[in-house]
Amino acid sequence: MADGPAFHRLGVDLRRTQLLELGERLFTTHAYTELSMSAIAREAGISKALLYHYFPSKQAYFEATLHNAVEDLRVRTAPDPSLAPAVQLQRSLDAYLAWIEEHADAYTHLLRTAREVAEVRALVEGVRQSTAARILQALPGDPPPAARTAVRGWLWFMDGACLDWIEERDVDREALRELLLGTLAGALLAAGARLPDVDPDT
Amino acid sequence: MADGPAFHRLGVDLRRTQLLELGERLFTTHAYTELSMSAIAREAGISKALLYHYFPSKQAYFEATLHNAVEDLRVRTAPDPSLAPAVQLQRSLDAYLAWIEEHADAYTHLLRTAREVAEVRALVEGVRQSTAARILQALPGDPPPAARTAVRGWLWFMDGACLDWIEERDVDREALRELLLGTLAGALLAAGARLPDVDPDT
Repeated sequence: MADGPAFHRLGVDLRRTQLLELGERLFTTHAYTELSMSAIAREAGISKALLYHYFPSKQAYFEATLHNAVEDLRVRTAPDPSLAPAVQLQRSLDAYLAWIEEHADAYTHLLRTAREVAEVRALVEGVRQSTAARILQALPGDPPPAARTAVRGWLWFMDGACLDWIEERDVDREALRELLLGTLAGALLAAGARLPDVDPDT
Repeated sequence: MADGPAFHRLGVDLRRTQLLELGERLFTTHAYTELSMSAIAREAGISKALLYHYFPSKQAYFEATLHNAVEDLRVRTAPDPSLAPAVQLQRSLDAYLAWIEEHADAYTHLLRTAREVAEVRALVEGVRQSTAARILQALPGDPPPAARTAVRGWLWFMDGACLDWIEERDVDREALRELLLGTLAGALLAAGARLPDVDPDT
């Protein structure tokens, strides 16, 4: 067998990736307290010992699953700096909403868990803060303090609107995106801030 | 002593009111698990037996305190139906923001507790739903489904913006009110809804 270190390494990474995908399904369809490492190993079709080899505890497994989902979201919504700020935001929003559509259960579960688990709350809050900073940096001139309030409020708006969207399923993704963009523009103008130009050449 | 039933009744109500005011202070300055009925009785300057006479358990005391605060908020923000919808909303918002300024600790504590305690979450969600229904009813014509998404999102925006406002204290109450009203108008327009007229005679 040509099972050298490189091949073995790939096997380990693949297994870890599969376990993280399984984790997303398990943690969004079961309550955290309901799941045991035995049940997880059984679902994965591996021994409990092997599962512990990858993740030292259920909490570590949960956190790795969560970070994996957030990292996936972060990569997919990363803005393209060669585009104008308004276009970057539109593209990022598209990717964000597509991710939510694909992972509706995980998304609602994430927001629900964020209420209950301090670590998840810190993660969600961290994503909110970096997004807020990115939007504020793209504003021309010297935005007033109320612009910060507007952007932070808007990130809450997004969560509330997305939860409604997933629950009711009677609004197109494009309509939701336009609602989000229009609301942000309205909030920034009401805060006395100037909007960035949509033309990438200015 | 002319301590008849009516006087005695007043005494009971007064004491209960005082205990609820004390409760707001205690529950917003201490973690729920830290407080004991003995400590509460000591703070109130009454016997533990008398405290239990008013509230059968710490949870009952906490819930009564919470309902008292929410009821206070509800009464103070109740709209005046003789005014135009837009003016009603402006007045209610003024009263809401004034309440938050007065009860900043209680407000942040309420939102934090809402994450952790299902009963509080249900209460906050109930307030959001009745407010959303009130706003949607005031819209002329037949608003599209996205108007519901916009209003529900905006109620989240309010919480996020108010938390930012309390934390940073660099935005006037009037500026925040205008930000909230402008954002709602922007969101409703972006959702394809028509806005109610500000003139009460139309």
